[in-house]
Amino acid sequence: MTPPSPPQAVRSLDELRDRLRAFAAARDWDQFHSPKNLAMALIAEAAELVEHFQWLTEDQSRILPPAKAAEVANELADVLIYLVRIADKLGIDLCAAASAKMDRNEDKYPARVVKGSARKYTEY
Amino acid sequence: MTPPSPPQAVRSLDELRDRLRAFAAARDWDQFHSPKNLAMALIAEAAELVEHFQWLTEDQSRILPPAKAAEVANELADVLIYLVRIADKLGIDLCAAASAKMDRNEDKYPARVVKGSARKYTEY
Amino acid sequence: MTPPSPPQAVRSLDELRDRLRAFAAARDWDQFHSPKNLAMALIAEAAELVEHFQWLTEDQSRILPPAKAAEVANELADVLIYLVRIADKLGIDLCAAASAKMDRNEDKYPARVVKGSARKYTEY
Amino acid sequence: MTPPSPPQAVRSLDELRDRLRAFAAARDWDQFHSPKNLAMALIAEAAELVEHFQWLTEDQSRILPPAKAAEVANELADVLIYLVRIADKLGIDLCAAASAKMDRNEDKYPARVVKGSARKYTEY
Repeated sequence: MTPPSPPQAVRSLDELRDRLRAFAAARDWDQFHSPKNLAMALIAEAAELVEHFQWLTEDQSRILPPAKAAEVANELADVLIYLVRIADKLGIDLCAAASAKMDRNEDKYPARVVKGSARKYTEY
Repeated sequence: MTPPSPPQAVRSLDELRDRLRAFAAARDWDQFHSPKNLAMALIAEAAELVEHFQWLTEDQSRILPPAKAAEVANELADVLIYLVRIADKLGIDLCAAASAKMDRNEDKYPARVVKGSARKYTEY
Repeated sequence: MTPPSPPQAVRSLDELRDRLRAFAAARDWDQFHSPKNLAMALIAEAAELVEHFQWLTEDQSRILPPAKAAEVANELADVLIYLVRIADKLGIDLCAAASAKMDRNEDKYPARVVKGSARKYTEY
Repeated sequence: MTPPSPPQAVRSLDELRDRLRAFAAARDWDQFHSPKNLAMALIAEAAELVEHFQWLTEDQSRILPPAKAAEVANELADVLIYLVRIADKLGIDLCAAASAKMDRNEDKYPARVVKGSARKYTEY
């Protein structure tokens, strides 16, 4: 008997979505994965990310020691996992949504107007 | 003279990363994009997602009216945008990180043990 | 007929709790105020606070222009309102809880050991 | 020589503010307590609260087992602590701010109009 082959590395959002579907199905966890609950889980992971940076200066946050960078990578992964999961549950195409959002951002923040300023677009 | 061609639709995390780089560079916004600040922006967007669901029942959150679904897609896009931006600033490969995290999740939550239960893995 | 007298200013957490109870009861909103939902509302308000500071430097965050300070006061009020509401729904005494927490903090972070360092207590 | 007397229980927001001031001063931690950093710490604690509820149904969140209720009380305390600390750093009176906010809420959500509905006030 051969052992189960190890899961293949995920290389795209579609592959991650499929792996998450299989993971939840094998554990009968879809029942817990309402968008409401998943949004809560996502923000809890986002907060773990924030926690890594809360007492650092901005400059310190730019160059992390390797052990801390690995923890941050882990938190980013958790956020991505829940993001992909919510999108899947609601039938939303994340790349298309991000693409459309960037189209709007290009309109709202014309480069020649906002250059070098962090003021919110509503102030222009 | 021809007008600038419209930006191409983003089809992968790498393409989104590149578009965000160009967007920030054209506006001279890299100075504001420390990981610390980006983490704050990410969680603010995550909270806008949560806000859509806070007074809905879980069942209501599963089937959104089209207008609300479009707003939620927009919030998911915002979270993804900041996620990709932080990862880029820290040199983290999001797909590799998510893949490694799912490997660990497979170990921590063996399907035959946790099936149908939402108890945290530490309780097993 | 005299008009209703204006609500009295709130001067303590107990008075705020009572005013929130009356407010929710008059609107029949207790049905929406499960601790789960209130926790979501609280973090959404906390994120509006974060949003005010995300592109500011630490120094800028220390001295806010009056208009911005008023908005921040408003966000702090929102967080306090949901905090008092959750505590009330769960029968938790906030002052007693904060008092007990500070007792533990005094033990975990002895002044002579941690003075001037932001390292987490687990690192000591 | 007598040992230091134990800290007195905190009974109001003013007493909590004073205890937090003394705690930070004894540890030379005011340097880390910019409103920006404190807002991050606050939302990280709010997320720990959310985490307790994310896989619970609304009904389960209403009646917590004692051990879980104690943990939730602890998270509420953490949120309150950072809330009081930010308000102190910015010279904001939390009770006055909450009082003013409730005055506005009474106007925005007239009881006879919104009774029993969780629709946002902007929809009215």
